Amino acid sequence: MRSGINGDRLWARLMAMAEIGATPEGGSCRQTLSDADEAGRALFLDWCAARRYQRRRDRIGNLFLRRAGGDAEAAPVLIGSHLDTQPTGGRFDGVLGVLAGLEVLETLDELAVETDRPIDLCVWTNEEGCRFQPAMMGSGVACGVLDMETVLAARDHGGTMLADEIARHGYDGEPLPQLADAACYIELHIEQGPILEAEGKTIGVVTGGQGIRWYEISVVGEESHAGPVPMALRKDPVPVLMHLIGLVQAIGHIDEDARCTVGRIELSPGAINVVPGRADMTVDLRHPDAAVLETMHRRFIDGLETLRRGHPDIDLQGRQIWHSPVVAFDDTLVRLVRESAAARSLPFRDIVSGAGHDAFNLARRVPTTMIFVPCRDGISHNPREYATPADVTAGANVLLDVVCALTCGDR
Amino acid sequence: MRSGINGDRLWARLMAMAEIGATPEGGSCRQTLSDADEAGRALFLDWCAARRYQRRRDRIGNLFLRRAGGDAEAAPVLIGSHLDTQPTGGRFDGVLGVLAGLEVLETLDELAVETDRPIDLCVWTNEEGCRFQPAMMGSGVACGVLDMETVLAARDHGGTMLADEIARHGYDGEPLPQLADAACYIELHIEQGPILEAEGKTIGVVTGGQGIRWYEISVVGEESHAGPVPMALRKDPVPVLMHLIGLVQAIGHIDEDARCTVGRIELSPGAINVVPGRADMTVDLRHPDAAVLETMHRRFIDGLETLRRGHPDIDLQGRQIWHSPVVAFDDTLVRLVRESAAARSLPFRDIVSGAGHDAFNLARRVPTTMIFVPCRDGISHNPREYATPADVTAGANVLLDVVCALTCGDR
Repeated sequence: MRSGINGDRLWARLMAMAEIGATPEGGSCRQTLSDADEAGRALFLDWCAARRYQRRRDRIGNLFLRRAGGDAEAAPVLIGSHLDTQPTGGRFDGVLGVLAGLEVLETLDELAVETDRPIDLCVWTNEEGCRFQPAMMGSGVACGVLDMETVLAARDHGGTMLADEIARHGYDGEPLPQLADAACYIELHIEQGPILEAEGKTIGVVTGGQGIRWYEISVVGEESHAGPVPMALRKDPVPVLMHLIGLVQAIGHIDEDARCTVGRIELSPGAINVVPGRADMTVDLRHPDAAVLETMHRRFIDGLETLRRGHPDIDLQGRQIWHSPVVAFDDTLVRLVRESAAARSLPFRDIVSGAGHDAFNLARRVPTTMIFVPCRDGISHNPREYATPADVTAGANVLLDVVCALTCGDR
Repeated sequence: MRSGINGDRLWARLMAMAEIGATPEGGSCRQTLSDADEAGRALFLDWCAARRYQRRRDRIGNLFLRRAGGDAEAAPVLIGSHLDTQPTGGRFDGVLGVLAGLEVLETLDELAVETDRPIDLCVWTNEEGCRFQPAMMGSGVACGVLDMETVLAARDHGGTMLADEIARHGYDGEPLPQLADAACYIELHIEQGPILEAEGKTIGVVTGGQGIRWYEISVVGEESHAGPVPMALRKDPVPVLMHLIGLVQAIGHIDEDARCTVGRIELSPGAINVVPGRADMTVDLRHPDAAVLETMHRRFIDGLETLRRGHPDIDLQGRQIWHSPVVAFDDTLVRLVRESAAARSLPFRDIVSGAGHDAFNLARRVPTTMIFVPCRDGISHNPREYATPADVTAGANVLLDVVCALTCGDR
């Protein structure tokens, strides 16, 4: 179909939602389960109220708005994303996928399309993970990746327990939906990276998610005074830290898809005139190809061992603290996105998601894919986060087309 | 003279003083102008009370105990150090110089020696600088290096003003002593480094103090997500940080007297999955030779410039925040220390002080030198700080001999 969603309405709603928890810098702060998050959901439900979508909410606060299809028993197509933000969040991350999903439902209403199966618009709780860890919590619980009782016991920095916030908002303990019964899941999102913009592409056809490995490294030497102790007699962890950075950088250039990041470094005690006794750092390795990520992992572990042997006075310890395997999205859905972009003459390219998304959890249970649109300068989690109205509309139209292809019997 | 101080009494007093502000780990915490610092001074004054030393105290709390000499108008010889400690201080830093000074005075009493000039035992306020900045404050004010009114306005982390602590302890506003009238100043101290122990030397003949330059460096790139942004499109400050560490390390090997330290590194925002937007680091360069330190400085500044040109996407800024020039101690006094050690058949070597001391301030006004004794593993500012009774006694005896040589008319 060449009909389209109402781009002006979608943009107006994105801007209206951004006013909930608006920050002085032009972004939004709606951390999960806060009053602002609840107010954002209330605004969203107000917009839904004019339609007769069936509304459900599960015990972790995930919202499901169902537009009925011809066969009420048929496996539903799921679309959606999240409405919570980082403390310094922008106007598009997550919100776009939810409000574009609502556009899809309303456009089908307005075009009087009867789909052959239900469409569920999902709003996942706590995708961001900034207030309560871990991230992608609502989809994780719904997909059986996370344990409900464990996450209910999570506490924020102020000591508030997640279960108490759930109760405060009156989430009423409906049973979890049977996600395994769904037909598939499609999520529209901003890229959160610079590739589409740099290459002038409107649509990112997301073929999967990078595998991720996280490490914590400690380099323990001996604290000493910066004056009296000769260089040769020091047990300074900083030169080892330098070699570690070099190792991570070298691994980052194994090919153009590799991503290697040193995000945190701490020296103890951290005084200008004290040779540190200890350095701590974190390493984040990512690659879309599981075999290459394994090679990167081995190279890193071997590099640590070489450094350890080369610095017998230093106690160098590294441990992997997390491994998120490579995610491959569903070939059929990926092809559908590609075809939909082509049919609308939108410039597109295949892309692998570098960030984590609820779709990664869904992909463990049902055929899944994502659609990316460009975001300016690749900036996200920031008040400067921006996507153009034209790209937002284009992304929502591709979502509409894919949903139609999946639900209108013309596959 | 081959008579000596009372080593047992000196050791017993060092251990007794360590009980004032004793910490569970076996060290002492007597931060300047605290109740514990005042209690330490009170214990010291108790020990002095049996003798008829003239006692003075100036407006910044520096204490002066004078043992009279034959000519009351002759320029006094000054000895001493400090009684305040770091929060995690040891039993010897500063305390040794004060209590060994008291030993010298009492030993002269016990030997019924009449010196030809007065001897002033000095206890300088706030050498450590951990509670109120800057360090070496009492000697700095006394020597005119620091302005009294400025330092009186200093506040600790809790907001307490130094002037209020001075008033609370009843320091009574006597005029500052005329230090320029003194004959000389000699300070005994632990080395706070590993050289004497490593070479089996008992006495460090301190020929001067290293020059010190401090720098603050900021490396500003652009914060981005560790997943989506390709390595080639990042503006990551961490690789530049790596080159900076390499630059500092290379300068540290210009010769064996150079000391180069990266003491603090901070990445912002400092999250495992975020490419940092900014790195901050500190650099401490030291050398005993002013010309070499200048070369090190130039090499560092030139290296910054080269890095800046090589990374046009990164905003690299460095500024020198402190320069303490090289200190050269008095040749005659240095020779006297050397001769005194040799006369007692104590192994000795020339050494340059890497740490700052009150003696650096005194050296601007009067002929000055220091005497070092070894400290175990070079560890100081730490409960594990330790010097042997034999070395402590040896150092105090060298101080005694030098004072006698300066005051007994046999120079």
